[in-house]
Amino acid sequence: MASSAAAATATAPWKQLILNALESNSHLKHSSFLQLVLYSLSFPSFFSLMLSFSLCNFMPSRLLPLQATMGSNGRPSNRTVVFRGFQESSDKIQIHTDRRSRKVEDLWLCPLAEICWYFADSWEQFRINGRVEMIDEANQDSLKLELREKAWHSCSTRSRLQYLGPSPGLPCLSEESTAEASLDPSIGPVASFCLLILDPEQVDYLNLKTNQRLAFMSKKSADEVKGWALEKINP
Amino acid sequence: MASSAAAATATAPWKQLILNALESNSHLKHSSFLQLVLYSLSFPSFFSLMLSFSLCNFMPSRLLPLQATMGSNGRPSNRTVVFRGFQESSDKIQIHTDRRSRKVEDLWLCPLAEICWYFADSWEQFRINGRVEMIDEANQDSLKLELREKAWHSCSTRSRLQYLGPSPGLPCLSEESTAEASLDPSIGPVASFCLLILDPEQVDYLNLKTNQRLAFMSKKSADEVKGWALEKINP
Repeated sequence: MASSAAAATATAPWKQLILNALESNSHLKHSSFLQLVLYSLSFPSFFSLMLSFSLCNFMPSRLLPLQATMGSNGRPSNRTVVFRGFQESSDKIQIHTDRRSRKVEDLWLCPLAEICWYFADSWEQFRINGRVEMIDEANQDSLKLELREKAWHSCSTRSRLQYLGPSPGLPCLSEESTAEASLDPSIGPVASFCLLILDPEQVDYLNLKTNQRLAFMSKKSADEVKGWALEKINP
Repeated sequence: MASSAAAATATAPWKQLILNALESNSHLKHSSFLQLVLYSLSFPSFFSLMLSFSLCNFMPSRLLPLQATMGSNGRPSNRTVVFRGFQESSDKIQIHTDRRSRKVEDLWLCPLAEICWYFADSWEQFRINGRVEMIDEANQDSLKLELREKAWHSCSTRSRLQYLGPSPGLPCLSEESTAEASLDPSIGPVASFCLLILDPEQVDYLNLKTNQRLAFMSKKSADEVKGWALEKINP
């Protein structure tokens, strides 16, 4: 696989690399934590991004807009999320999120995202670039709603209770804890539960132990079959 | 400090939170690893970002430009880097990089960046937004060149050898390893060694054990003294 010449393959060769890394790092409880980057281009922010882009080398930073929550000023924003497995028989990556969080608003405007996933024990990094599909309760596709239902029931009670708390990222209006909320474990997903599915288009794999780096690029054939090309690049 | 009302302070209150997290997670060898996001707006890419932004909901993904290396298509890009300490007596964060890497090109065009730093044992996440200064050998300021020299000598031999390898991210032209290069430990930084200094403007702190989230925002007073305001926000 690690040939320096580009090669084409129909299955996703990087998927097995991730499964191997998950296995060899499984004793580290955070091995399923990854970082997700989005554009954060709400409409006013998009213009402020262009403004920042034009002016950032010429203006003192205090003149650029400062807002109460991160990622709301047109800059790319980054957060830790949990890998919830591959979608069955595919290379699509599942993530759960709160419908009211900033990232959902960003994804409505532009569904492009990048994951950075570092495995601390095997010294491997995956950077995965792709498009994200959001599945919330308003989705019209019954198969997708089924996926969301299944995802909800795979969550711990503690995780589920998070979706009953106040809107993430807004100023805290009360000192009271909301941890007292309770939830019937048999009921389906609450309105704020959203399933994100990232469909990878490019994967950059770096192994710091072997000093090997591979770039995987998806390509669709004329009959719409997704394949992968890979190239060995300098680390 | 965890007051729900905004409060102003002259020192950086989040810095102590990071120092505490580094101490309580010091047994994890990767606790100094963080993720750095940049804009990746080279000029052609900036226009492709705008194009992607306009078209990403209407075009099949295969029509968007695909390139050999990550982060070169106008999308925000994310990579793992090592925290190299705070700059002396300040809240500025030091990172080392290769002058030939993509992130340096991105930073020349726009110096805005965001760090995401997750501490696996204490369940704490820091998202730090700010502006990055690059110090390479062409810098005219002798104090800054001294900082770069000091940074170089703080690196391990293995780290220093990385800067003698072929250009990162380019296709690998040879199967030969470059690990045989040798380096006199007494000589100063090589041309490709670059010191990055991130000056934080906003910090979002999340503690998943206590379910506490704080937003810190830098503000400059009329006499140019940098201070910090903080607000408790919903996790």
